[in-house]
Amino acid sequence: MEIPVVQKVLKLNDDIALLLRERFEQAGVVVFNFISAPGSGKTSLLETTIRHFRGRFAIAVIEGDPDSTLDAQRIARHGCPVVQIQTSGGCHLEANLVQRAIAQFDLDSLDALFIENVGNMVCPVEFDLGEHHRVVLVSTPEGSDKPAKYPKLFRTAGIILLNKCDLLPYVPFDRAQFDTYVQSVNPEHPAVSITATRPETCTAWFAWAEAKITGRMAVPAR
Amino acid sequence: MEIPVVQKVLKLNDDIALLLRERFEQAGVVVFNFISAPGSGKTSLLETTIRHFRGRFAIAVIEGDPDSTLDAQRIARHGCPVVQIQTSGGCHLEANLVQRAIAQFDLDSLDALFIENVGNMVCPVEFDLGEHHRVVLVSTPEGSDKPAKYPKLFRTAGIILLNKCDLLPYVPFDRAQFDTYVQSVNPEHPAVSITATRPETCTAWFAWAEAKITGRMAVPAR
Repeated sequence: MEIPVVQKVLKLNDDIALLLRERFEQAGVVVFNFISAPGSGKTSLLETTIRHFRGRFAIAVIEGDPDSTLDAQRIARHGCPVVQIQTSGGCHLEANLVQRAIAQFDLDSLDALFIENVGNMVCPVEFDLGEHHRVVLVSTPEGSDKPAKYPKLFRTAGIILLNKCDLLPYVPFDRAQFDTYVQSVNPEHPAVSITATRPETCTAWFAWAEAKITGRMAVPAR
Repeated sequence: MEIPVVQKVLKLNDDIALLLRERFEQAGVVVFNFISAPGSGKTSLLETTIRHFRGRFAIAVIEGDPDSTLDAQRIARHGCPVVQIQTSGGCHLEANLVQRAIAQFDLDSLDALFIENVGNMVCPVEFDLGEHHRVVLVSTPEGSDKPAKYPKLFRTAGIILLNKCDLLPYVPFDRAQFDTYVQSVNPEHPAVSITATRPETCTAWFAWAEAKITGRMAVPAR
């Protein structure tokens, strides 16, 4: 007779993330985890995206920062439900923090949840938050070498957004070099150019996000 | 009779950092720990600074990155002794890694050691590397809110450099807001404007670094 054996193979974080993902599936809410360096434009992209999908999708936002509520204030101005997680110096979000944050939302009424991780290209990679998709941003002033220096981050991305393309004339960014690095770590997802503060440059991103949201929304779709 | 009691009050990292600092003092080498987000311009500033002090101070560099040797290659091109620490996904340098790296240098022949930490505004703050001074960089495209979001980092800075000031006409950076935030967390060190790739904008930084180096150099100064 085969004896079932349960081994401690997952970290506690992964156990909670698994439960969160099931909860998100039940609620029909699609969850995106935004990861980038500090100041790459995550919050600006969220603002533009919330405006774009207003009246079509019910969206909520979780903001992660070591300190302050500045980003949550920016989101709240758009009338969007938002929770600020202050990590008190912690450098990434963990699943249990997300678990506590979602208690503030009526999850079943939502179509999408955007989680803005702490600005950091290293640690957030290791912590599953129960998300369906990872959105990785990098901005042109940061330089073209980032995929080579942070390969794990770019490897786990469902979409890679190259932000602040309006600054290309003014910064030493080697697009060919960047694309070569991206290709070497994540050949399936070439980077998508955007300028987060200019919605007219974000159509490919909007289309990608919309497909992910409508593809999983609870039936009947609102 | 008073009994001497030794308590485990320091983390292992702090014990090693203490020994490193003593070693640096003995060698008469002044050590700077450069901390910023990824892509803020730490390596560019090091390149400009190495060129500026060439022939006057003997400088070595330790580069910290999760992966790649790209930054060390940039430094080596200037004929400067350099060691790359690859943290294999780690998000900050620790004192024991610095201890292993300095074994590659003739420490007693050096005047200054520049340590470029992993690009991250959170975790490096907590790890003393035995340095004498922390150099904190933030660049204008990252936005003016960074001192409010990362107060611990800015509080421990010996100098705060606002980099990429050449981009000010093109980015939404509120200098007054930034200065107010800096003032609130580190009133003694107002931010110094630079554009790291343009040495003519770095004179205040050069003067500060030179004063720190000559103030501690082993006698007789070379």
